[in-house]
Amino acid sequence: MAHHPTLLLIAPGKWGTLWIDKLAKGPIRLVVHGRDAYATDAIDYALSFRPPAGLLKSLPNLKAAFSLGAGVDGFLENGDYPARVPLVRFVDPTLSVEMAQYVILQVLMHHRLQRKFDAAQRDRTWMQRVLPRRTEDTRVGFLGLGEIGMFTAERVADLGFPVSGWSRSGKAAPYLKSFAGEAQFTAFLGQADILVCLLSLTRQTKGILNARTFAALPKDAFVINAARGGHLIETDLIAALDCGHLSGAVLDVFETEPLPADSPLWAHPKVSITPHIAAISQPDVVVRYALDGIAAFERGERPANIVDVATTY
Amino acid sequence: MAHHPTLLLIAPGKWGTLWIDKLAKGPIRLVVHGRDAYATDAIDYALSFRPPAGLLKSLPNLKAAFSLGAGVDGFLENGDYPARVPLVRFVDPTLSVEMAQYVILQVLMHHRLQRKFDAAQRDRTWMQRVLPRRTEDTRVGFLGLGEIGMFTAERVADLGFPVSGWSRSGKAAPYLKSFAGEAQFTAFLGQADILVCLLSLTRQTKGILNARTFAALPKDAFVINAARGGHLIETDLIAALDCGHLSGAVLDVFETEPLPADSPLWAHPKVSITPHIAAISQPDVVVRYALDGIAAFERGERPANIVDVATTY
Repeated sequence: MAHHPTLLLIAPGKWGTLWIDKLAKGPIRLVVHGRDAYATDAIDYALSFRPPAGLLKSLPNLKAAFSLGAGVDGFLENGDYPARVPLVRFVDPTLSVEMAQYVILQVLMHHRLQRKFDAAQRDRTWMQRVLPRRTEDTRVGFLGLGEIGMFTAERVADLGFPVSGWSRSGKAAPYLKSFAGEAQFTAFLGQADILVCLLSLTRQTKGILNARTFAALPKDAFVINAARGGHLIETDLIAALDCGHLSGAVLDVFETEPLPADSPLWAHPKVSITPHIAAISQPDVVVRYALDGIAAFERGERPANIVDVATTY
Repeated sequence: MAHHPTLLLIAPGKWGTLWIDKLAKGPIRLVVHGRDAYATDAIDYALSFRPPAGLLKSLPNLKAAFSLGAGVDGFLENGDYPARVPLVRFVDPTLSVEMAQYVILQVLMHHRLQRKFDAAQRDRTWMQRVLPRRTEDTRVGFLGLGEIGMFTAERVADLGFPVSGWSRSGKAAPYLKSFAGEAQFTAFLGQADILVCLLSLTRQTKGILNARTFAALPKDAFVINAARGGHLIETDLIAALDCGHLSGAVLDVFETEPLPADSPLWAHPKVSITPHIAAISQPDVVVRYALDGIAAFERGERPANIVDVATTY
């Protein structure tokens, strides 16, 4: 029997079960962090959302690390990621589809008064009316124009909304008004009636959804954060909602997850909360990506989507 | 001053105000049914959703009638439409966009458990989970493939759902599995996990959403009716929901509108109700269509989208 490389899976409690059975069928030896004892020098590869501080640098023979999600901030936030180890980002079309669905659902619930219609049904009230704002006058602005952002923006444009996007370097597309860099950030915000954050979390983007950003949005703007809790200053959001400047917000991600039971966000009348479900990687696609990536490294190749840790984060 | 043709607006109470001011600015003499006295022989054109029985045939000099919405069933249901008078249907891209938004919103609310997440928020519960059914395993079937149906189906397909459609004669498109005619009706139903009705209401389609149709859908199918109340046998729907065969329904249209306060639909735990707002024609687009159509007739031309009353309805 051939030598099988050893993969360390590091995943929060119940989630591990999504992948364990499928991974165990691959040509690897599977070690599950928190379940199996292992020698640190036996680990060849790691698969995780957010490895505990110090763990990866304690693995002397680690050949590569794979991210379970599209973002790799969970690997880099402690600043102790071993620079010599390639970090591979999960890139998958199904993730873009899931995120586009989530954003469109939230944009449309807001735009089309769906929760008001739900409330009217509870009251047996026939609340027939024209929508307060036309689609062509409702400008949706995307913060972050990676694969997921571009895919989502195009589908929102296909539903009649004027769409814009902001990114570091600017991205051109026929369906998108593009803004680039710090110089155009305020101009971008000033025309975003619905602001959708799909940025990756880096030193530059941490806390980008703050009081100054909210103040630059049009009156009655609506904010959707489906990226990372670290992008948002939650107290600034609550202040901007309470003073009447923002009309509402949808949050899928939070500074602390699960969101603590005593968070004022839960019961805020202008805030909708979903439990970090906007775009969950499909288990079998994740497993194939990890196994294919390991096979590539074992052949001496480098798989696609290796993160440029030094310059990006 | 040139002779201005006389337009009779026939619209339910409060809705008239959406169009009256704009129409009054056009090169016509505007008469509002129920507000203004008028001589029946003075009316050149009529604009309405649903003219009262006998009204149109009492207008001896009527040159054409214009529909305020995409459907013309309101003109034809009494069987007394004057055959000599051209009937013009409102066709507008903004109406397709509105309907696509509505259908996508309802498909996604169901598919992505949005009301369960809303309930979890009220309970301060972090209900993180993988969606119960994958997008690529959730087949959305469209009953009716007119302009609006095709536009909507394509956008649903763009969000990763397998899409099919049924129409009288069959419509081919790369994003769509097409079924045609009575012979393929049951096969179409058998593969529609979410059934979306966007048919026009005719003698053939009246009551098409009935017990036999629901029985042919897969177990746990979900039904969205955004076409006309006349398509649906409401008691059959309630029975199919209560016996557990269907998982839920969204209704925008009803046998009687406004939906009576004592309807069992209001409080049914598997039914969501919206008050006929899926796709409301924009007042200024409607006014332009009516005025342009009148101008065309006055020049001796025939505008686009004249309904073939005899063969279609």
